[in-house]
Amino acid sequence: MAGWMEQELEQRKKGIPAGQVREVVEHMRQNQIDTVWDVQAAYDGEFLGLKDRCAFGARGLCCRNCEMGPCRLATGDVPQHLQLITPAINRSTCGKTVDDMVANMLLQTTIRGTAAHLGHALHLVELLSEVGAGTSALAVKDEAKLEALATALGVTAKTSAARATGVAQVLRTDFNGPRDGAPMKFVAVLAPKEASRLVKLELVPHKGACELIVEATHSTAHGMTNAAFKLLQWTLKLGVLDMVALAVSTEIQDILLGKPNVGTSHIGFDALDPAKVNIVVHGHYPPLAEMVVEAAHAADAAARNAGATGVNVVGLCCTGNEILMRHGLKTLGNNLQQELAIGTGLVDAMVVDVQCVFPSLSSLVGHFHTKLVTTMGELHMEEAVHVPMGHTAEETHKAAAKIVALGVEAYGKRDKGKAFLPKTPGKSLMAGFSVETLVAVLSKLDANDPLKPLIDAIANGTVTGAVLLAGCTSPKVQPDMSHVAIAKALIKENVLVIATGCAAGACARAGLLQPEAAAQAGDKLKGLLAALGKTAGLPGSLPPVLHFGSCVDNSRVVMLLKALADRLGVGVDKLPAVASAAELVTEKAIAIGCGALALGVTTHVGVAPKVMGSPFVVTTLAKDLEQLTGSKLIVAVDPKEAAGEILAELRRKRTGLGLN
Amino acid sequence: MAGWMEQELEQRKKGIPAGQVREVVEHMRQNQIDTVWDVQAAYDGEFLGLKDRCAFGARGLCCRNCEMGPCRLATGDVPQHLQLITPAINRSTCGKTVDDMVANMLLQTTIRGTAAHLGHALHLVELLSEVGAGTSALAVKDEAKLEALATALGVTAKTSAARATGVAQVLRTDFNGPRDGAPMKFVAVLAPKEASRLVKLELVPHKGACELIVEATHSTAHGMTNAAFKLLQWTLKLGVLDMVALAVSTEIQDILLGKPNVGTSHIGFDALDPAKVNIVVHGHYPPLAEMVVEAAHAADAAARNAGATGVNVVGLCCTGNEILMRHGLKTLGNNLQQELAIGTGLVDAMVVDVQCVFPSLSSLVGHFHTKLVTTMGELHMEEAVHVPMGHTAEETHKAAAKIVALGVEAYGKRDKGKAFLPKTPGKSLMAGFSVETLVAVLSKLDANDPLKPLIDAIANGTVTGAVLLAGCTSPKVQPDMSHVAIAKALIKENVLVIATGCAAGACARAGLLQPEAAAQAGDKLKGLLAALGKTAGLPGSLPPVLHFGSCVDNSRVVMLLKALADRLGVGVDKLPAVASAAELVTEKAIAIGCGALALGVTTHVGVAPKVMGSPFVVTTLAKDLEQLTGSKLIVAVDPKEAAGEILAELRRKRTGLGLN
Repeated sequence: MAGWMEQELEQRKKGIPAGQVREVVEHMRQNQIDTVWDVQAAYDGEFLGLKDRCAFGARGLCCRNCEMGPCRLATGDVPQHLQLITPAINRSTCGKTVDDMVANMLLQTTIRGTAAHLGHALHLVELLSEVGAGTSALAVKDEAKLEALATALGVTAKTSAARATGVAQVLRTDFNGPRDGAPMKFVAVLAPKEASRLVKLELVPHKGACELIVEATHSTAHGMTNAAFKLLQWTLKLGVLDMVALAVSTEIQDILLGKPNVGTSHIGFDALDPAKVNIVVHGHYPPLAEMVVEAAHAADAAARNAGATGVNVVGLCCTGNEILMRHGLKTLGNNLQQELAIGTGLVDAMVVDVQCVFPSLSSLVGHFHTKLVTTMGELHMEEAVHVPMGHTAEETHKAAAKIVALGVEAYGKRDKGKAFLPKTPGKSLMAGFSVETLVAVLSKLDANDPLKPLIDAIANGTVTGAVLLAGCTSPKVQPDMSHVAIAKALIKENVLVIATGCAAGACARAGLLQPEAAAQAGDKLKGLLAALGKTAGLPGSLPPVLHFGSCVDNSRVVMLLKALADRLGVGVDKLPAVASAAELVTEKAIAIGCGALALGVTTHVGVAPKVMGSPFVVTTLAKDLEQLTGSKLIVAVDPKEAAGEILAELRRKRTGLGLN
Repeated sequence: MAGWMEQELEQRKKGIPAGQVREVVEHMRQNQIDTVWDVQAAYDGEFLGLKDRCAFGARGLCCRNCEMGPCRLATGDVPQHLQLITPAINRSTCGKTVDDMVANMLLQTTIRGTAAHLGHALHLVELLSEVGAGTSALAVKDEAKLEALATALGVTAKTSAARATGVAQVLRTDFNGPRDGAPMKFVAVLAPKEASRLVKLELVPHKGACELIVEATHSTAHGMTNAAFKLLQWTLKLGVLDMVALAVSTEIQDILLGKPNVGTSHIGFDALDPAKVNIVVHGHYPPLAEMVVEAAHAADAAARNAGATGVNVVGLCCTGNEILMRHGLKTLGNNLQQELAIGTGLVDAMVVDVQCVFPSLSSLVGHFHTKLVTTMGELHMEEAVHVPMGHTAEETHKAAAKIVALGVEAYGKRDKGKAFLPKTPGKSLMAGFSVETLVAVLSKLDANDPLKPLIDAIANGTVTGAVLLAGCTSPKVQPDMSHVAIAKALIKENVLVIATGCAAGACARAGLLQPEAAAQAGDKLKGLLAALGKTAGLPGSLPPVLHFGSCVDNSRVVMLLKALADRLGVGVDKLPAVASAAELVTEKAIAIGCGALALGVTTHVGVAPKVMGSPFVVTTLAKDLEQLTGSKLIVAVDPKEAAGEILAELRRKRTGLGLN
């Protein structure tokens, strides 16, 4: 795909989308406070046509593994003027080709993404174990879900506590081993029954998850694997492992925090209440945030003593999505709104757990009164107070209370002259969808075979197919707008659109999570959404984009696809389903994308990943992979082009199933 | 340390050291076959003064973690003309400062190095377990060492097999967990009794080793830890873990393959025998190489049938060091000789296991008849046949026989017209030193307190101190010569010099592993070496540089320091001992260096690591660390300057102990 860099620039030139975000960015610029938008603008500023992000690194054509390097290779579409000032060699000092170099770096990226999700899951397994032991502040909230998972994993304990302990033990063995060659038990929970491709391609995790990360990392080190195909195989295998980590996290979170509830809420900076102590919970690991929500209720008197009318806990990023879908709490926004949140001057405490927390927050809080609070061992920040959740009920309650107290204390130092809320109002939204809520609605149509109405709708063309919009929002394009443009194009063509994470936030800011937005859908889909809304007992239609939760909850969609595939007796790769990470940022998004590809789901990305320098990697992922996994990578920066390719893929899959 | 890049260039300008290496490189150049030397030369070629390795990456001032990037920061000593074409920003898109960026990259590098050593150790633990089960082709060769390790780890089994199984189980738990908060048992084997600094700085591994790698990796991902000090703390902790992995590997290798034996052998390309089938074993994991040595004896008839006079197994890199120190087999050389080995046209099979295997071998073998054989799951190469060792005696014997047969078959295709051996002869050497051999000699002087003679020699100034020369050889300087120059300068000042890995090879090529070279030592050391040679029953003196084995065997030196520290009742940081990796290349060298620093051993590097862009990281490691660990990093490219700084550090430590 030539011209991707120019296309990204073209998208960027459209600027910051109008509305709340642009208002806050402009306000901060007036006050000389830089954000991610300004760094991107600096990279776009030109000097002799040369200022830009590194053309080598952007294509993956650089290796810094060992101390003989760094090495960079000026091949392919690296601009001419850079080729002139780079040695005319086609290998690294140790002899890596462009393909090895790019595949090595892709694997390293996927390792970081998978390690992040695995770390998240490991913490939850530990928490489940503490709940089983009765020492935790948390308890089992969804006994049925725990029982189902215990059964699936062969845990036959009779009490809730014993079940929690037993499930935690099985998962510990899956993650830490020793497994002595036994297959990872959880894979059976996740993978479709028809998984012969996974087995044939040796993509099923074959060791304890942590040891696999060590083995993959070892493979990327200096003087190790230099066969690009083997590195790609590793990458896809880690993708499967990543899916396991996601699904384990979602399952345990539902068990301990409760399943999502469909309901309405709000997105935008006006989620902040100028009269209240505003505590923002940000990150991806929600257990402590749940306790902060509880502790906030208990701190009303303290807040009033400090001159506020109460404590307002607001979500951000995926911890925001978690408390949104379980408690209907308002959300400020997503990854690109975190700096702006501080910029409103109304955030008294910003509590972060793990992942996607911009380091810039450390310097941003210096401009305001905001207390930055870190809570997890893997995420320490400068200028932050560290308040870990602890491992006992007492420690956790204490930590939550301390965090709220820090917020109340900071409120007293708030400079009202610095407070700023945009004039544009935020948006209402409907959220809290999941496999369970979907099946609950569908079972009202067919109690014996709840998936049948959905399968019929796909078969008869009422629904063209299903597309998951996932991943981050990115300043490398016009943020939000790739997701939104793709969503709008797809619903018009009667595609069932599910969104998670920041992608769901982008759709929410565009109003696509509102029932009224169903009017923008194609007639067939519109009819179905209205009918389902009625069946569900809602006042109106379902929204045309269904918010399925945090980015970890992409596993919910994998579970839905598994259910559909098993019901039809086919592999997931046969289903008319596509995933799209139109504005990917994180290594986690890469890992999830690789997992989707491995499982047979064609995946679109709308920001060119750092692999474009390797003809082999690009051709394999975008073309040859289809023969192996039944899926392929679509790289399309232009949202219109992306929507077209996604639709074409859905139709190809429909044709494969013998559907019109 | 300003000017490091210029100093590296100055060293490089001295060219390829005269002798065998230069002869083979020139021969290959005449035949238009490029090697690592040519890639380095291409980077050194100038065009408008701009061709070079990336000035950003070389200083660590570049981040490619996420898909918002890559980001690069033109700060510090990045050349002016590059500052002009780079945005004037002091943070990455997400807000990382130069310090966070550099510390993050250093941690990622250390993670890869530690994962490599951990992978090595995990394979050995599995092998020990198979030996315990009686299914392996290998067996316990050193019962006393197994018994000692079992005792140290609290394994009370009575039979050799049960001991092997028990030790493997304890180590599995150390590596994989779950450890449930219990300290890693092996740390007690390795760390000195006085280890309060390690504990205070939280550098003792606190979880299963594999899970620690996951946790550290998670910490480096997008939006995670951005406190440079915390990242450095992680880096040092992984250094300790790396030391554990090294020591476990050495212990099990000694148990299964036997302890080293002091003896004489040979280094150089003339280790290849033109009349024989030449099989080169290369890498770091020696078990299969041992079996290949055995299988070669059995293949004499086959070799004669093919027209050769026999099968000649020759070592390279650290697998070479392993079979050298246990069997006295000749070695071709080290990391920078691997390409040249193929270039002689005399290598029939190149058998690689893990680490430091240049990808360029895949294309080099295309010029010759050489069969490239990979043997481990983590190292696959293009153009290679994969022959894994397997997990049973039958599989392993079959694999070894197959490898030898591949060599014999390839011999039949050897083009004698392409054969080339340099005119310069190789060098004889003495190798096979270890803690055990040293203690055995010393105990002849004092049977009750073997370390006393050594301690007395240090105390009375006969020995100034001990320096370990470790790590790779690098084309970023004049290869070999940094090690050699430092070694010569130190022995003149009566420093006991120990060498491992490629550093030992460099000293060997310079003749410093020959007893006669003791003549170059200072008078006091010369006398001691002669006396010890006599005590040991050798015909002459000990050589002035003691070859302690492979790079994994750096752990032998750690064990020696632990023994000395425990005998004196002090921490290792009090001893007049320094480590030097004058020509570091691999991530493993970085990890080992961090381990040395964490344990309190001041460490010199002679190639500037990719951290020079961060004032904080440089100041912390090179200066402030001393207050914390009692050790510091010395970056000195010029060998003369390096030797001076190393000597000054030894004298500082002597003063600390109240010695002259």
